[in-house]
Amino acid sequence: MPDAVTLADVHAAADRLRGFAHRTPVLTCATLDALAGRAVWFKCENLQKTGSFKYRGATNAVRRLDDATAARGVVTHSSGNHAQALALAARVRGIAASIVMPRTAAAVKKAAVLGYGGTVVECEPTLAERERVAGEIVARTGGTLIPPFDHPDVIAGQGTACLELLADVPHLDAVVAPVGGGGMLSGFAVAAKGTREGVRVYGAEPQGADDAARSFASGVWQPQTAPDSIADGLLTSLGRLTWPIVRDRVDGIFTVSEAQIVAAMRLVWERMKLVIEPSAAVGVAVVLGDEFRALPGLPNVGVVLCGGNVALDKLYWR
Amino acid sequence: MPDAVTLADVHAAADRLRGFAHRTPVLTCATLDALAGRAVWFKCENLQKTGSFKYRGATNAVRRLDDATAARGVVTHSSGNHAQALALAARVRGIAASIVMPRTAAAVKKAAVLGYGGTVVECEPTLAERERVAGEIVARTGGTLIPPFDHPDVIAGQGTACLELLADVPHLDAVVAPVGGGGMLSGFAVAAKGTREGVRVYGAEPQGADDAARSFASGVWQPQTAPDSIADGLLTSLGRLTWPIVRDRVDGIFTVSEAQIVAAMRLVWERMKLVIEPSAAVGVAVVLGDEFRALPGLPNVGVVLCGGNVALDKLYWR
Repeated sequence: MPDAVTLADVHAAADRLRGFAHRTPVLTCATLDALAGRAVWFKCENLQKTGSFKYRGATNAVRRLDDATAARGVVTHSSGNHAQALALAARVRGIAASIVMPRTAAAVKKAAVLGYGGTVVECEPTLAERERVAGEIVARTGGTLIPPFDHPDVIAGQGTACLELLADVPHLDAVVAPVGGGGMLSGFAVAAKGTREGVRVYGAEPQGADDAARSFASGVWQPQTAPDSIADGLLTSLGRLTWPIVRDRVDGIFTVSEAQIVAAMRLVWERMKLVIEPSAAVGVAVVLGDEFRALPGLPNVGVVLCGGNVALDKLYWR
Repeated sequence: MPDAVTLADVHAAADRLRGFAHRTPVLTCATLDALAGRAVWFKCENLQKTGSFKYRGATNAVRRLDDATAARGVVTHSSGNHAQALALAARVRGIAASIVMPRTAAAVKKAAVLGYGGTVVECEPTLAERERVAGEIVARTGGTLIPPFDHPDVIAGQGTACLELLADVPHLDAVVAPVGGGGMLSGFAVAAKGTREGVRVYGAEPQGADDAARSFASGVWQPQTAPDSIADGLLTSLGRLTWPIVRDRVDGIFTVSEAQIVAAMRLVWERMKLVIEPSAAVGVAVVLGDEFRALPGLPNVGVVLCGGNVALDKLYWR
């Protein structure tokens, strides 16, 4: 069965994003190289517009709509980075975005969506209610539902970060991407495997939300129930479109503990001077972990720092 | 009287730094543009090696030494970013660095110097004692004293960041650099005025350490006594070499309050996802301030984020 997304789709997304998304820098750090035992190239999607890679997928999806469809607006249910990303992508196109959020979502998250011009629609905090309310808005407005990861345009958009990374560092031996719903990991897998022969693609996941690792190990999709991790962007299950790509194109998935995540996060703030969120620290923790360090070869590894949206009124390491 | 540093010196420093210092990215942020009322281009020297622009001046000074002189090592007295910068610049060249620090300096600052391979020599916490101990080491070892700012090679090295900024954003109308001892501001003034006709150069200073603003306004060098600011990199007086360059080449110096500094620092962490230290926030606070916003014209302004070395075990905004 063909992938839901092809390399051509990722290249088309890259064309669509030009001038709209930042071409984020790739940074290095001698201290982290020494700790990782190899050269690590960090793709800084925390420096992307709205503070995460999600802006790529949201923008690609919004810009693909024809004018008549776009005019009816876009809809999603999310309380995370996709919500902010879709709100801004819609505003840039001059269309409405309705973001369904549980009424229990943090006020700062609602404020962020409002700040990017989105409309927040509150609902009861269950998945069924979120889907029902979003469906109701779509039925009423004729708007387009743009889900956070399980959508070909979203996956292709996320893959554009990997194209840029490989353009800047063509000799990479492997890329590491955190995995929640799998939008970024599957987009990276399509982009990397299609661009560079032999490059390996690894997922990075919290032990407390290890559905992708379990699915990958067993070859059978497994849901994430009762996730427990500080990496709040990685708590969901793999999707219907992302799972087959992860299963067929990814070389392995590594998991890390909460303590490893927090330590990696602090290290990046302290030594790289980059604010990253816990989900982004998961990829860093993987390359610093014993299991990954023990992989032979792979002198040059790319890691995506997927986002930097974190509350700054507390410290995570105290 | 000719400047202590010429544009040719800055270009020579740039050649000397190639492959040794990071060519740091220039980043933008739509939120900060809106708050500043113009396009602002941030030169990210917080992402420089050792976490500050000081690595440029230290590396230029160290690499200019002939082999016999270099072999006797380098010496400075500093408890700030110059100490770490000189320690690493020396290690990269394979020579010794003796860093004289007051015994009252924070343990984390001593550890940072040790981490970069420098030797910490403790002394009593007075300027006279620091100078005496440093002089004693120079006399004993034949090492070379590399002061933190008032040295032609250091000034020229700092100016290289401005060359890169103007290469990346050739249409800048003005550049803003924080001013403590004036090494960066004078280096930027030489680089900017020599590179782009009509570009303005402004200093940014805390109200609690406003000797440069007072000196500039009166035309007569004035010392900084009893400074009081969170911006601990900007507490010193202008130097013998830096002051004439600041006086003759800089277009103005703006001062900001402690509250403005902390607010700007938080804004950059939160919206740009960059860890910057209070001294770096001073430049940001200036461009966000009413006085600077009221300057006519200047649609494109560059601001150097000079460093990111800040303790991460507390929050500055609580």
